[in-house]
Amino acid sequence: MKKHIAVLTSGGDAPGMNACIRAMVLNAERAGHKISGYLRGFNGVLNDDRICLTAQRMHNLIQQGGTILHSARCESFCQPQVRQQAANNLKSAGIDTLIVMGGDGSFKGAHALKAHWDGQIIGIPGTIDNDIDQTDATIGYYTAIETAVNSIDKVRDTADAFDRVFVVEVMGRHAGFLGMSAALASASDFVLVPELFECAQTSLQQIKQQIMQRQQSRGPVSYVIVLAENLWPEGVIGLCQNVTEATGLEAKPVTLGHVQRGGSPVSQDRILAVKSGTFAIELVNTDISDIMIGIQNDTLVTVPLEKTWQKQKTLGKDARKTALHLMNQRYID
Amino acid sequence: MKKHIAVLTSGGDAPGMNACIRAMVLNAERAGHKISGYLRGFNGVLNDDRICLTAQRMHNLIQQGGTILHSARCESFCQPQVRQQAANNLKSAGIDTLIVMGGDGSFKGAHALKAHWDGQIIGIPGTIDNDIDQTDATIGYYTAIETAVNSIDKVRDTADAFDRVFVVEVMGRHAGFLGMSAALASASDFVLVPELFECAQTSLQQIKQQIMQRQQSRGPVSYVIVLAENLWPEGVIGLCQNVTEATGLEAKPVTLGHVQRGGSPVSQDRILAVKSGTFAIELVNTDISDIMIGIQNDTLVTVPLEKTWQKQKTLGKDARKTALHLMNQRYID
Amino acid sequence: MKKHIAVLTSGGDAPGMNACIRAMVLNAERAGHKISGYLRGFNGVLNDDRICLTAQRMHNLIQQGGTILHSARCESFCQPQVRQQAANNLKSAGIDTLIVMGGDGSFKGAHALKAHWDGQIIGIPGTIDNDIDQTDATIGYYTAIETAVNSIDKVRDTADAFDRVFVVEVMGRHAGFLGMSAALASASDFVLVPELFECAQTSLQQIKQQIMQRQQSRGPVSYVIVLAENLWPEGVIGLCQNVTEATGLEAKPVTLGHVQRGGSPVSQDRILAVKSGTFAIELVNTDISDIMIGIQNDTLVTVPLEKTWQKQKTLGKDARKTALHLMNQRYID
Amino acid sequence: MKKHIAVLTSGGDAPGMNACIRAMVLNAERAGHKISGYLRGFNGVLNDDRICLTAQRMHNLIQQGGTILHSARCESFCQPQVRQQAANNLKSAGIDTLIVMGGDGSFKGAHALKAHWDGQIIGIPGTIDNDIDQTDATIGYYTAIETAVNSIDKVRDTADAFDRVFVVEVMGRHAGFLGMSAALASASDFVLVPELFECAQTSLQQIKQQIMQRQQSRGPVSYVIVLAENLWPEGVIGLCQNVTEATGLEAKPVTLGHVQRGGSPVSQDRILAVKSGTFAIELVNTDISDIMIGIQNDTLVTVPLEKTWQKQKTLGKDARKTALHLMNQRYID
Repeated sequence: MKKHIAVLTSGGDAPGMNACIRAMVLNAERAGHKISGYLRGFNGVLNDDRICLTAQRMHNLIQQGGTILHSARCESFCQPQVRQQAANNLKSAGIDTLIVMGGDGSFKGAHALKAHWDGQIIGIPGTIDNDIDQTDATIGYYTAIETAVNSIDKVRDTADAFDRVFVVEVMGRHAGFLGMSAALASASDFVLVPELFECAQTSLQQIKQQIMQRQQSRGPVSYVIVLAENLWPEGVIGLCQNVTEATGLEAKPVTLGHVQRGGSPVSQDRILAVKSGTFAIELVNTDISDIMIGIQNDTLVTVPLEKTWQKQKTLGKDARKTALHLMNQRYID
Repeated sequence: MKKHIAVLTSGGDAPGMNACIRAMVLNAERAGHKISGYLRGFNGVLNDDRICLTAQRMHNLIQQGGTILHSARCESFCQPQVRQQAANNLKSAGIDTLIVMGGDGSFKGAHALKAHWDGQIIGIPGTIDNDIDQTDATIGYYTAIETAVNSIDKVRDTADAFDRVFVVEVMGRHAGFLGMSAALASASDFVLVPELFECAQTSLQQIKQQIMQRQQSRGPVSYVIVLAENLWPEGVIGLCQNVTEATGLEAKPVTLGHVQRGGSPVSQDRILAVKSGTFAIELVNTDISDIMIGIQNDTLVTVPLEKTWQKQKTLGKDARKTALHLMNQRYID
Repeated sequence: MKKHIAVLTSGGDAPGMNACIRAMVLNAERAGHKISGYLRGFNGVLNDDRICLTAQRMHNLIQQGGTILHSARCESFCQPQVRQQAANNLKSAGIDTLIVMGGDGSFKGAHALKAHWDGQIIGIPGTIDNDIDQTDATIGYYTAIETAVNSIDKVRDTADAFDRVFVVEVMGRHAGFLGMSAALASASDFVLVPELFECAQTSLQQIKQQIMQRQQSRGPVSYVIVLAENLWPEGVIGLCQNVTEATGLEAKPVTLGHVQRGGSPVSQDRILAVKSGTFAIELVNTDISDIMIGIQNDTLVTVPLEKTWQKQKTLGKDARKTALHLMNQRYID
Repeated sequence: MKKHIAVLTSGGDAPGMNACIRAMVLNAERAGHKISGYLRGFNGVLNDDRICLTAQRMHNLIQQGGTILHSARCESFCQPQVRQQAANNLKSAGIDTLIVMGGDGSFKGAHALKAHWDGQIIGIPGTIDNDIDQTDATIGYYTAIETAVNSIDKVRDTADAFDRVFVVEVMGRHAGFLGMSAALASASDFVLVPELFECAQTSLQQIKQQIMQRQQSRGPVSYVIVLAENLWPEGVIGLCQNVTEATGLEAKPVTLGHVQRGGSPVSQDRILAVKSGTFAIELVNTDISDIMIGIQNDTLVTVPLEKTWQKQKTLGKDARKTALHLMNQRYID
């Protein structure tokens, strides 16, 4: 049966969102469905701000960062009457399936629509933080690692040239996926992420001890610390001061910031996006709804939306162990 | 117990080999083992051409392509007396564990040593082709995809500017992993890999049909075909001629060649390399031997070496279906 | 006075053409001019295939390779009656200024229009070959160097790993700018470009001599030769065979091909494109016509179109000397 | 005559310093000179901390960021007795020529040595800021532009997705070269560099006016401002607050920081480094001393060291005009 599908992107943008939109549009068109895009997340539904998506528009889109549908927060969406308005608009527009790409906040919004609207609701995880439970990866995560690692590779050059300490702040406030992967792949010397963080004092002692040991055995050292945002009491500048006081060595801060959100998606994000988008369109005309499309052990799965935010996804024990073992850090079980 | 570990890289070089060597050396040194590197694959064992590996040397190595241990074919290794000589050298040098990084040819060599030497033998899959059974990925595979995709993204610019057909030849003679991933991530229009190849005639008809349909619906088209090496009867130039004859449109060849083998490893290869290398050193002092370290569902496993070449690893049915569905190609079950 | 400007891109596409189009459109719109784009080079003029260009369309265009105006050869343009038809179309469309971006073939076409049409004619050099006289650089040249160097950096990894000889063929059939710059920046060991080429026999002896000397002093060597296309009698494969025969070492070919034409322009090409495009619009409403915009000593100049192809631009003596000195090659005065 | 040459890198590291060291070593070795490297800038001279440089060590160095000779400040060098000690060490070591790579602080130190030592003194400009007079470019400048532009390209993705204002802080406290080139090549909407800065109030009004105009004509806008470090009264965060207050739109800060200093040098920096280094060795055995090697109109020149810091080098009038014209900013003559 030919359906009318609508897509929106919500929350932080992530590289690969466009690749996913492209896959959905191509597959929808092939299956004979009509497909529209709401602009600026749920605001687009509220304002009925909608564009028609065609295969023609998708040319040369797979490699573009950002999202052509734009994104935005929509705080009023927590109010039932606002969601009712959204539902009314979906009905008026004749939408059968609503596909929401974003993080857990976006999924909560999508799930809450269910009480007001009986169309099909599908979520696709798109966030650089990879902090959504029930899926191994989220669209944008691989690219953000690459961006962070490329930046740390550059910082390492100066750290080596000056035998200096650098603290590099990466995104990821709730989970250490980005921080740990970036630290591991850039051969950073220490990593501070939520899953491994006991307290500032202990970490500082470990850092001091490592630096002192290396100085004794090798002479002047270069040393790079990866820090997840919002973790250290006084932030990246505070940590630099703490390290400088503790070791007598000048520590310099680098904040990667929003650079990590953009850029042309790397292949792994493009492929994940294409697979997820293709699968979403296959679900149209089934009675599977109120779910997120996840990837587990390289297999696409559907997970009830509610399950995606019930448990905080955190770094697995193995990942933590491997990483810390390599970095000489103490492993906290 | 403190052991003497030796490492060699054999077969085609792959980005991430150095990252793996670094992880092994750091972990070996921490555990108190001695670790050496044989130069130029099995030739190093035959000539006792060996260097001492230390953590000091590993600085700034994670990001370098190639292999600091060099690689080379060693055809004489198929002769038992040559392998006996290698075994004698391993004994004389006091090697307890030999770690071989490479493809299936290298693993066959390592396994054949078992009849002559009772030390521990560990294989780590390193090849851009990802054609080794019992592991989901091999070191170098992710980087090769990225290199191919970046190149195809550039070719697409000219294809679009001239509304022209391009055929891009990628590596991967036995399996379509690299070709399929590169085609999918670059939004190529057609892909020719061993697992999907019926015959030249059928493929040519499909290509012709697609191009004709697009010309009718959209006017001048740009069209990119990804071709695995050694698949098309007369090679990439032959396919260009065939397409030109069939469609009346000029098709131009691009051969990516050895560019795909080198370069700084992407994060996914660095992480896989670090995990595999760390795990290899954990196996020292166990009685697990004659095995390859694989990764299955993101978990490190050990697989008897013999099992790694018994079955030709090929693209899974799902991967093929998704890809072809997206590309409009017919799916061959 | 408000004018109607038309732009076209012709000949091989080059990264930065879109950046130049953007600069022209933004400046034209600010000055109150109308600006249109002809599609597919001179074919667009012949078929009156024309689109309206607006600042709105220029968003996010500076970083895109290729050309949104498409390019194409137009062989019939050498016939006077065809050019007369083009002139008629320009008159009918009310075009006051025609801006042609491309290489010397495109400039010849533009200049030949002068006999049939009295509008203003401006050329902007856009080609990766940098082989246009009276300008220090052409749009696309810097990006092509970068692409070639990035590829050779990767090939070097494998050359080093295997102590092997590689021959890398780069574009640039008439002038050695791309080849020499790529060889110099990639630390290649030998370069074969038209300006330095005496004969195959002499070059082969030099290569052989260098390789032999290095083998004696250092043992196994890696060696990278950069070859300009169409220079060696039997091409890149022929040179590989010649080197293999002369030295006994296997030499492998790599052909960079069309990958060198595309890709996001590097900053130097974007800046050159922006400057040239801005200057072109400043020339509107002057009586300067039938000229190319060049850059000489970082200053924008206008040069009669006829002068741009009268002399073959070749590598300067200094550039050749520096390069060869560094590469150990003999300098041919 | 065979000489003993010594090289040091001082001040901030810059991509291409290693490429220059390589060129000097290769050329020195060919000419039969001995060449040494002092470690950590002038500290190496003071402590006679010196290594022997050979062609063998230079392999695969051209593409590495940072400096293998390390760099460091040396504040005590402003004291005559310290410089006398340095001179004594140079004499004891038998150094004939001292080559100093760095910025104007390093050149002042080199020039001051002249009163104490009668050897040959040569400066080579290496800094990402390009703020050294009498040379068109400095080693590292081109790479820093590229790094900044790649980052701003990524920020633009998120700016577009959220129709948001971003302020990106780049390096360059005294001159606007890096800021202006980065802004121009990234199609940023506004640029704040020393040469163009009247006062905060005026700039803020221009920004507000532009944003308001665009909102009226196009609806929601994305807007990127490039800010040179240390220019805005309250820094990048202060500017964000000012813009937010003035426009009612949330402005987000991005600080590129030390990422701009490192990384593999782009081709233009490699080529400049190779030319400068080759020329430096040609000057050995001449009586030219106390000079900097500059590049003017693509020609290598020698400039008395004293002249390099007498005048503040600033953006040329043309560069400012072109850039501002394109960006809609008011041009300050």
